[in-house]
Amino acid sequence: MRIVLTRQKIHGHSVDEYAAALRDRLPDHDIVVARTPDEEREAVTGADVVTGEGHSMGRLLGEVEAPDLKLFAGVYAGTGHLDLDAFREAGVAVTNASGVHAPNIAEYVVGALVSLARDFRRATRQQDRREWRAYQTRELKGSTVTVVGVGSIGEAILQRLEPFGVERLAVRHSPEKGGPAEEVVGFDGLHDALARTDHLVLACPLTDETEGLIDADALRTLPPEATLVNIARGAVVDTDALVSAFNVNDLGAAFLDVTDPEPLPEEHPLWGFEDVRITPHNAGHTPAYFGRLVDIVAENVERIAGTGETGELRNRVV
Amino acid sequence: MRIVLTRQKIHGHSVDEYAAALRDRLPDHDIVVARTPDEEREAVTGADVVTGEGHSMGRLLGEVEAPDLKLFAGVYAGTGHLDLDAFREAGVAVTNASGVHAPNIAEYVVGALVSLARDFRRATRQQDRREWRAYQTRELKGSTVTVVGVGSIGEAILQRLEPFGVERLAVRHSPEKGGPAEEVVGFDGLHDALARTDHLVLACPLTDETEGLIDADALRTLPPEATLVNIARGAVVDTDALVSAFNVNDLGAAFLDVTDPEPLPEEHPLWGFEDVRITPHNAGHTPAYFGRLVDIVAENVERIAGTGETGELRNRVV
Repeated sequence: MRIVLTRQKIHGHSVDEYAAALRDRLPDHDIVVARTPDEEREAVTGADVVTGEGHSMGRLLGEVEAPDLKLFAGVYAGTGHLDLDAFREAGVAVTNASGVHAPNIAEYVVGALVSLARDFRRATRQQDRREWRAYQTRELKGSTVTVVGVGSIGEAILQRLEPFGVERLAVRHSPEKGGPAEEVVGFDGLHDALARTDHLVLACPLTDETEGLIDADALRTLPPEATLVNIARGAVVDTDALVSAFNVNDLGAAFLDVTDPEPLPEEHPLWGFEDVRITPHNAGHTPAYFGRLVDIVAENVERIAGTGETGELRNRVV
Repeated sequence: MRIVLTRQKIHGHSVDEYAAALRDRLPDHDIVVARTPDEEREAVTGADVVTGEGHSMGRLLGEVEAPDLKLFAGVYAGTGHLDLDAFREAGVAVTNASGVHAPNIAEYVVGALVSLARDFRRATRQQDRREWRAYQTRELKGSTVTVVGVGSIGEAILQRLEPFGVERLAVRHSPEKGGPAEEVVGFDGLHDALARTDHLVLACPLTDETEGLIDADALRTLPPEATLVNIARGAVVDTDALVSAFNVNDLGAAFLDVTDPEPLPEEHPLWGFEDVRITPHNAGHTPAYFGRLVDIVAENVERIAGTGETGELRNRVV
């Protein structure tokens, strides 16, 4: 089969790393890298599979004939930037990279919780002044950690928290599915959960149900020392309400990998709070990204090559 | 029984918090707080149990008669600052607080490993400049974490690492005792372990065997990207060799709660490395300290009150 990689730079890595990993795993298939818009148009025409970020796919599907195209394999977990209807109309299956960054994001979250509890940033400030002065800290053990969203990432977070002796509370759309937590509730139980939460972790997709989920009401319901970790999407939190909560010292601390808007403008007040820590939407970055992505894509390519069918694909979205 | 608390300030907490927790747990015993050197001399004379840091105990044992004294309950895990022979001669049992800070130090270590892998300090620097720029990071999963020392702290660290998908290697004085690791070796296997270590965690007591254990040779044996976390004692590492390793970029990063000397002098080069992170010997700090300490002391007080004997005491050192 002919597998075309469209232009892409993922987390600062060149597309050549992805191509090398795919060639290594699928030596009997033809792996083509398209490096320009023209090359993309040309390559997609004869492609069985296209894989990439997908920003140019909507235009390509309208502009060129791709009679053999069976699958677009997206390299991101999210597909919100794709015109999924266009793929449906063209009869092209779509898969995503969901699960690829569950281990590293889960590590990030545990590290963020400890970093806040032990105030590692204060240590950095003291070190900058060459000041040796012990200070009191908090402990995670015995506290209640609430994780909103139990997809592959939420599950990986809850699993890693198991030996920490915390009370794990999970809030998810379908609580009947359960999860590795002491208690699992639906979104209708959110406010009751927040009232007894020490550490709130957002790991849900951005949907109509979750947009602005953590609003002024939710923030008021959290205890005043509570901490918030957001690795979901910035818009799950009402940013103005979050700023107001810090203005009046109604919240302990926050560790945010995502913000709304994003990138966060230079003049935005969130930058300035000493108890708000911001990472530039790179919790998903991992050196293992291409390795795990290739596992998904190669498995699906082999299924299509074997059966010619796209019925049973891993991580299928369309 | 009469239980005397000598002058002490533990991790910035007042002795009154300790006294309140003891009174709460041992309502039928007489809990006395000695607030001055004179009060200490007076109180110890009639004491059954003395508890405190112990700095003044050697002098007190020589100066005053304490015919009823059966137990000195130290409030630190270490007893290196105590004249244990003086207690032996006086027929007074000594216990320590070992295990009290295992949960919080274990949290610290996991947080330190993640903080280095994901370079949270870089995020702090960027936030200070209000700069939104993603950067590549590392992942713990699949790496090898070597923990030297498997007492209550080393064990708690290894247990918390279990769901992270790392290869856990433990180095301990008595490898036949095993531990929650994929592999346990003795100190004679240290260098072989270091050669395949991505993250080295020091959690051993300071003894003749471990002083200077991580010397120039050990540092040369570690891979160039390896990270070092020290929550043991500063002198387990040869500090000059550590500085030299960073000078020539032979080591990835270090996260040190303890240094040699300590406090670290203002002009010391360790302060200045961006890849060395220093906390002021407060990994042991936890708001749960008195709660867990009182569990040990109260249990021992009740045993002595019941039998009059000091034979079977928890955490007994002498």
